[in-house]
Amino acid sequence: MATALAKPHLISLAAGFTDNESLPVRETRELLSELLRSRQAGRVALQYGTTAGDPLLRRITAERFRLLDGVRERAPAYSPERMVITNGSQQMLYMVTEALCDAGDLVLVEDPTYFVLLGILQSHGLGARGIRLQRDGLDLVHLETVLQRLKRTGELRRVKLLYVVSYFQNPTGTTTTFEKKAGALELLRHYERAAGHPIYLLEDAAYRELRFGATDIKSALAVRGYSERVVCTGTYSKPFATGVRVGFGLLPEPLLSTVLRIKANHDFGSSNLLQHLLARVIASGRYDEHLARLRKRYFRKARVMLTAMKQHFPAAVHWEEPTGGLYVWARLPSRVKSGIESKLFQASQAKEVMYVPGKLCYAKDPTRREPNHETRLSFGAATEPNIRAGIARLGEAMEELLD
Amino acid sequence: MATALAKPHLISLAAGFTDNESLPVRETRELLSELLRSRQAGRVALQYGTTAGDPLLRRITAERFRLLDGVRERAPAYSPERMVITNGSQQMLYMVTEALCDAGDLVLVEDPTYFVLLGILQSHGLGARGIRLQRDGLDLVHLETVLQRLKRTGELRRVKLLYVVSYFQNPTGTTTTFEKKAGALELLRHYERAAGHPIYLLEDAAYRELRFGATDIKSALAVRGYSERVVCTGTYSKPFATGVRVGFGLLPEPLLSTVLRIKANHDFGSSNLLQHLLARVIASGRYDEHLARLRKRYFRKARVMLTAMKQHFPAAVHWEEPTGGLYVWARLPSRVKSGIESKLFQASQAKEVMYVPGKLCYAKDPTRREPNHETRLSFGAATEPNIRAGIARLGEAMEELLD
Repeated sequence: MATALAKPHLISLAAGFTDNESLPVRETRELLSELLRSRQAGRVALQYGTTAGDPLLRRITAERFRLLDGVRERAPAYSPERMVITNGSQQMLYMVTEALCDAGDLVLVEDPTYFVLLGILQSHGLGARGIRLQRDGLDLVHLETVLQRLKRTGELRRVKLLYVVSYFQNPTGTTTTFEKKAGALELLRHYERAAGHPIYLLEDAAYRELRFGATDIKSALAVRGYSERVVCTGTYSKPFATGVRVGFGLLPEPLLSTVLRIKANHDFGSSNLLQHLLARVIASGRYDEHLARLRKRYFRKARVMLTAMKQHFPAAVHWEEPTGGLYVWARLPSRVKSGIESKLFQASQAKEVMYVPGKLCYAKDPTRREPNHETRLSFGAATEPNIRAGIARLGEAMEELLD
Repeated sequence: MATALAKPHLISLAAGFTDNESLPVRETRELLSELLRSRQAGRVALQYGTTAGDPLLRRITAERFRLLDGVRERAPAYSPERMVITNGSQQMLYMVTEALCDAGDLVLVEDPTYFVLLGILQSHGLGARGIRLQRDGLDLVHLETVLQRLKRTGELRRVKLLYVVSYFQNPTGTTTTFEKKAGALELLRHYERAAGHPIYLLEDAAYRELRFGATDIKSALAVRGYSERVVCTGTYSKPFATGVRVGFGLLPEPLLSTVLRIKANHDFGSSNLLQHLLARVIASGRYDEHLARLRKRYFRKARVMLTAMKQHFPAAVHWEEPTGGLYVWARLPSRVKSGIESKLFQASQAKEVMYVPGKLCYAKDPTRREPNHETRLSFGAATEPNIRAGIARLGEAMEELLD
């Protein structure tokens, strides 16, 4: 933020902000006005609610998630009783970590992973082990290797949690297949005996609804027989409006009760006004309409970025084309560093373009060296002309270094 | 909540909810509509903001607090740079505790104190010591006795914090004088050397603006020479709308930076939409208008409760008349228990009236027995007829037990 204010011509491909022009200003105005036109509905929205969240929004959200998963029957995994509304899904990540882990514990994360989660781990004095990613998500062979090693070294009793950003992952854009989610759950259960306690899968589905194509993938909640080990979080911030900050999670007991106690200590419960707004946004059909527009928009912005990358990036730079989400993950030759102290980062700053250095997305994992030659590029916030210009500038900086 | 749903005729004098009929539905609708009529202002409100909060709301809030304290010059204690916007002031209490204390530490609290803070302490594995209250607030002689004892026993190094709800305290309605705030700060500083680290005063000013009379009392920020040791929190939830959940705190460095790191992990920052709404509520003058009405309303509801108590409570029950806030603290003879397992509580439940047992507001402090003969009665949420009926029912239950 400070850098952005000081340099008005700076193009940020770093920010995780969402597209500004498509923010649903009119929809929000109309629905809030409708909500507050009734004195009775207005008063409920302006009063405290419950810690778990507005019952209607919990029901709608649980139902929505169940339908996305194509689960027809009233499966307990999708019960509104398991649903907690939070301040963005971020708060749920924080609370689940706080509920499950004690200082010195280890969390299994994708390698690389969402860097804010690494901040949460650090602030709680937790370690991490990275699980390699393949094109179709988690490397299950590596997951098993890591679990075996932890068993051997007696560290398995410190592992409570595997964290996976399963759809269009932040930062790499990778999506984990349903089969791999099932495989991961099976592995975790296998190692529970040696661990002496449950090992949960924390599935962060923040980007799920931002897919470009028609095909969705089921969440881990749909894996039969494992719903007592899955926490699934999602958010309305990114698909609707980041300024509204409403996220959610579905949790099994006994974790649910612990998280509700933490939430009561954090803030008693999220703003009722925002929750009532969201319930109307969804029930009115405006959410789905907005989402359809937004997907097209991000698809287009992703194309703009990828086309510019093909045009401006040196041949030695590689990437996968994302099929949703907000990010492209570009890999330089490993000798070319991309971290904050690197020549590339400094050259980019001089050219007034910002990216997220890949290194920030890697856990401090003593079992491997942190890669330092990747960049996370976001097509979320920047305008199309700025995406083109930003990629051109970054390509120039790369060319100069690779020469 | 569950009890309230199951018993529709139940009168709750327990809930800390605010008055329902005076919630500013029209004002909120008009200001949100105004805000979202401009596409540009609307987009800013619907986008992510910064972790510390909206710059305008931070400035307005810091300024407002400075003016309430009657401090004319640009004192650093009231700098907008020190201001952090939170999800209710509750979140700030949580974060300051997390930032300052490690498991096993001790927090000094008023005896009795705000019971949700006790939950926060418990969840962080923190102990507490109660400081007695007098009519004009903290008993400074007792504060010194406690500090001396902790020094003697070598426990002073575990003390980082004194927590005071300084205006119309929850639960007792007590207000601490400015002189006592200054005296407490002086004492804390005196013991810092033996503690080996700063000891902060965390002043919770949640009820400050809900005073019935004209006279305000300065916050601890106005004590000269101590602003580096004072954290002052406040909220717009209770004086405006609890469903909006916007609170704030003014903090000195290095605590400020630590709290911002925690806030970034919790949720990146509070909802921009709510913050932009609040900035307009205040700048438009609607906040002050609403507050003036609300004060009259609570003053009136307090009179209704006190009149009913005089009429219906046995002569052996005592209380102070509150001069603001939402609560009356009634003390029964010490032989009459009021806790959840008590006859009084059960008789009250049978008569369908709820109060908060005083015992819940006392820290687990091994140096004294927890009193168990008091009740917190709130005139915030109940209607006037329900206040009258509820007090009459409770009076009956008391009469039966005292006979």
